[in-house]
Amino acid sequence: MSETDVPVVDFAPDRWGNPEHAITLPAATQAALDALGIRPGQAPVAPQDVALADVAVPDEARTALAAAVGAEHVSDAAVDRLRHTRGWSTPDILKLRAGDASDAPDLVVRPRTHDEVVAVLQLCSDARVAVVPYAGGTSVVGGLAPERDGFRGVVALDVGRLDALVALDEVSRTATLEAGMRGPRAEELLNAEGFTLGHFPQSYEGASIGGYAAARSAGQSSAGYGRFDDMVVGLVLATPRGTLEIGTAPKSAAGPDLRQLVLGSEGVLGVITSVTVRVRPVPTARVFEGWRFPSFEAGEEALRRLVQDGPLPTVLRLSDEAETAINLSDPSGGPTGEASGCLAIVGYEGGTDEVESRRAAATAVLEECGGVSAGTEAGEKWRTGRFHGPYLRDPLLDAGAFVETLETVTWWSNVSRLKTAVTEAIQTALGTQGTPAIVLCHISHVYETGASLYFTVACAQGEDALAQWAVAKAAANAAIRTAGAAISHHHGVGTDHRDTYEEEIGPLGVDILRAVKATLDPAGVLNPGVLVAR
Amino acid sequence: MSETDVPVVDFAPDRWGNPEHAITLPAATQAALDALGIRPGQAPVAPQDVALADVAVPDEARTALAAAVGAEHVSDAAVDRLRHTRGWSTPDILKLRAGDASDAPDLVVRPRTHDEVVAVLQLCSDARVAVVPYAGGTSVVGGLAPERDGFRGVVALDVGRLDALVALDEVSRTATLEAGMRGPRAEELLNAEGFTLGHFPQSYEGASIGGYAAARSAGQSSAGYGRFDDMVVGLVLATPRGTLEIGTAPKSAAGPDLRQLVLGSEGVLGVITSVTVRVRPVPTARVFEGWRFPSFEAGEEALRRLVQDGPLPTVLRLSDEAETAINLSDPSGGPTGEASGCLAIVGYEGGTDEVESRRAAATAVLEECGGVSAGTEAGEKWRTGRFHGPYLRDPLLDAGAFVETLETVTWWSNVSRLKTAVTEAIQTALGTQGTPAIVLCHISHVYETGASLYFTVACAQGEDALAQWAVAKAAANAAIRTAGAAISHHHGVGTDHRDTYEEEIGPLGVDILRAVKATLDPAGVLNPGVLVAR
Repeated sequence: MSETDVPVVDFAPDRWGNPEHAITLPAATQAALDALGIRPGQAPVAPQDVALADVAVPDEARTALAAAVGAEHVSDAAVDRLRHTRGWSTPDILKLRAGDASDAPDLVVRPRTHDEVVAVLQLCSDARVAVVPYAGGTSVVGGLAPERDGFRGVVALDVGRLDALVALDEVSRTATLEAGMRGPRAEELLNAEGFTLGHFPQSYEGASIGGYAAARSAGQSSAGYGRFDDMVVGLVLATPRGTLEIGTAPKSAAGPDLRQLVLGSEGVLGVITSVTVRVRPVPTARVFEGWRFPSFEAGEEALRRLVQDGPLPTVLRLSDEAETAINLSDPSGGPTGEASGCLAIVGYEGGTDEVESRRAAATAVLEECGGVSAGTEAGEKWRTGRFHGPYLRDPLLDAGAFVETLETVTWWSNVSRLKTAVTEAIQTALGTQGTPAIVLCHISHVYETGASLYFTVACAQGEDALAQWAVAKAAANAAIRTAGAAISHHHGVGTDHRDTYEEEIGPLGVDILRAVKATLDPAGVLNPGVLVAR
Repeated sequence: MSETDVPVVDFAPDRWGNPEHAITLPAATQAALDALGIRPGQAPVAPQDVALADVAVPDEARTALAAAVGAEHVSDAAVDRLRHTRGWSTPDILKLRAGDASDAPDLVVRPRTHDEVVAVLQLCSDARVAVVPYAGGTSVVGGLAPERDGFRGVVALDVGRLDALVALDEVSRTATLEAGMRGPRAEELLNAEGFTLGHFPQSYEGASIGGYAAARSAGQSSAGYGRFDDMVVGLVLATPRGTLEIGTAPKSAAGPDLRQLVLGSEGVLGVITSVTVRVRPVPTARVFEGWRFPSFEAGEEALRRLVQDGPLPTVLRLSDEAETAINLSDPSGGPTGEASGCLAIVGYEGGTDEVESRRAAATAVLEECGGVSAGTEAGEKWRTGRFHGPYLRDPLLDAGAFVETLETVTWWSNVSRLKTAVTEAIQTALGTQGTPAIVLCHISHVYETGASLYFTVACAQGEDALAQWAVAKAAANAAIRTAGAAISHHHGVGTDHRDTYEEEIGPLGVDILRAVKATLDPAGVLNPGVLVAR
């Protein structure tokens, strides 16, 4: 499966991804679980057996919504409500598996145009009905579970029908895309014109353009193509008070950058209905390689030198010893050189000559830092398998294991300290509950001044897996904050990171966000309780 | 004069720059003025003869300010008040030359620490005294002329004593600089540690770190080093309600980017007291070349190809035919090839090998687009003379000429249309007043998706030069807006661009800024009337 042949399909409410790509656990993984005494827990409640509360939205509001978008685009069908219940964090999945649909919206509303989105927001604001803006629905931080109290129901505003490539300026290399377009569809349409976004987050199969923008997504090729918030040169926001259109020019000194106020606003200020993004020509050459380093520190030094002094590869990531060892234990893993050290993935995309010259210069730096090439096979294996990871979680949960990820970002001089602090915090929090954890880590995104760290945590499910993880997550959040790092590099804030985020930006920062929200959403109906407390 | 041997000196209140570098008009320029019948107008009022209004700030507020920062740092001396009157636009200078000091602050207050800045803001907020945050004072858009009505006086809060290099992280390549440090001093201190900001705006001799940030400065090496707002990874803002500290990590998905709300806020939200910026190693190699193109369109195509497909030079700019011809008429100009076409300046900085390989690849692109090398002499001439331009204005005004600059930015596909529209608007507005204008233009900054245009306008001074220019400036603003471009690429908004800026961001955008201001500055004392109307 490559990034350009990923079909756009609906997910089941409770299992990640394209149902046709569902996988069973590799034998070695199952054997490892058996050896650890990990056994399947209670069987999950099937989606069709999950009980939903009665629809709370008043009839008159529902009638008005139907008049605004068409009755056929206002649904209270159980399958719609379930599919729009929360996102894809492990706690989200565990709740649904336990039959808990308490965060389900009452209605799913699917406008087709920007003006219809504005109309829905005005209606809901007048009727005091809360609105969850819903694009791909792939939040892993509780961004789709707003607070219900004080409102006369909750509506999921699904922008999936806003899915057009609105404009393409081949000279300026910009494209205007509607918010509901999924990543693979955007690539398909842009590729047909010779362009690419180059944005490939692990949520690629499910996430949408609007979500990329609202949650500041970062793709795996961010070294070369930039983060999504770097790509956005303009956007249109629908709010209960009307339309905010931003992005007159590529760069401007005219005042604060309001675009950067909407990016990352996670649906609490309005609904992004379209974005204008910088696009690039489809690359004509692509090389992905594995590189093995004797230690994490040696690999980190190589990544830092490449991003600070160049040449900069398109993809640049580094697994620590634990993650490298686990990857090797995958029976489909193939040869990646010696079974030790830390594996880096280094990818180059661009013009043929340019890729070769960049690769030659980068190779010299990688070797100077102690790297040994593990060849293009290791690189291609990573590239072609890079959207598979999330498919492993469901069978692991079925087998009684717990698995979750989290991420953060800091300055280069603080990377080692942060990695140690977070690893130890999670291991202690889970170990003291009698469920010792494996913690894997990789550097996933690099910048001149720092890098992100992405952690994968696995252990046995305890009696109450939600409570078990809550302790570990709180410990991780505290460790990140104490180490002076940011609470999220690319997952966002949602509700899971809200308290730590508020500490990070301080009381004046929180007041600013509340003031902006009160300006655009006076009734406070948009994603109440997400990002900052009400 | 190069960027590293520019001494930090005080300017006179009414003439730009280091008094030792003042110049007289070249003979050819004087001859051209004579031929056009341009004669000196009324002699300017000497600064010591300019009348100042009585100090309006109440005595008890003045006593409290003296207690907060020390009596010796609260000045009502005429020279201090005059030097803090308005900025350096041509209208600003003309007003002072006419003896109009109506925008002079009552007092100049010079705190030494962030906490003293907070204290001054709280005192002024309580006393309803307006505050003009003052760093280098080089605004050319009326950013230092706040509205006085409704306030019990105006204080210029000069951050010049906050001038320390607070921290340097050599691994992460970040430096924390206080806001009052002038550009040349920052380079001097960073160079001593092996680093550079690489930020060289034309205001370099006068501008300060805080002003770079508050007004989104762009330096002449922006292609290589980025704009100043790209360099800022953190900042500290003093407000009447306390301190806002932003910048936990290099990049984050945690919420809106509040840093981008403070950058460009032009002192209306608070006073930036320090910034943490990304720094780079001092380059070991530097090559600047001139390139001549047969037309502006051919040169524009070359610049666009370099910034979109690489390799990207460090400096990249292109003068149109008129500007190229005028530059050639400068008797100190030296040979730059044929006396026609459009001159581009292409500069490379970095490591020795890297500069040579980048230059070789860029040369191929420049030649493919029809460029002919004008050699390094033309490039070096531009580089060493690049801070001289502003010195020409004073003798031109003395001689009876009017000269001013303005700038804008748009998408690549809109550059030609914008250039024509602005040029014609200015020529018509000044021509119909009986003062036909020369309008010169260059592309000064390039991005993947677009470029900035910088215009220089010269004509004879009319009877009322302020009114004469007001008509032309309004026409230029309208042309920029009609062409869909941004009202400023790097000069900012101030009061001169405020109305057009409000149209650009729309009523909801204005409401957002007012809400944020009301949150941080409830009494509205900070730069009243700058950026958005009260």
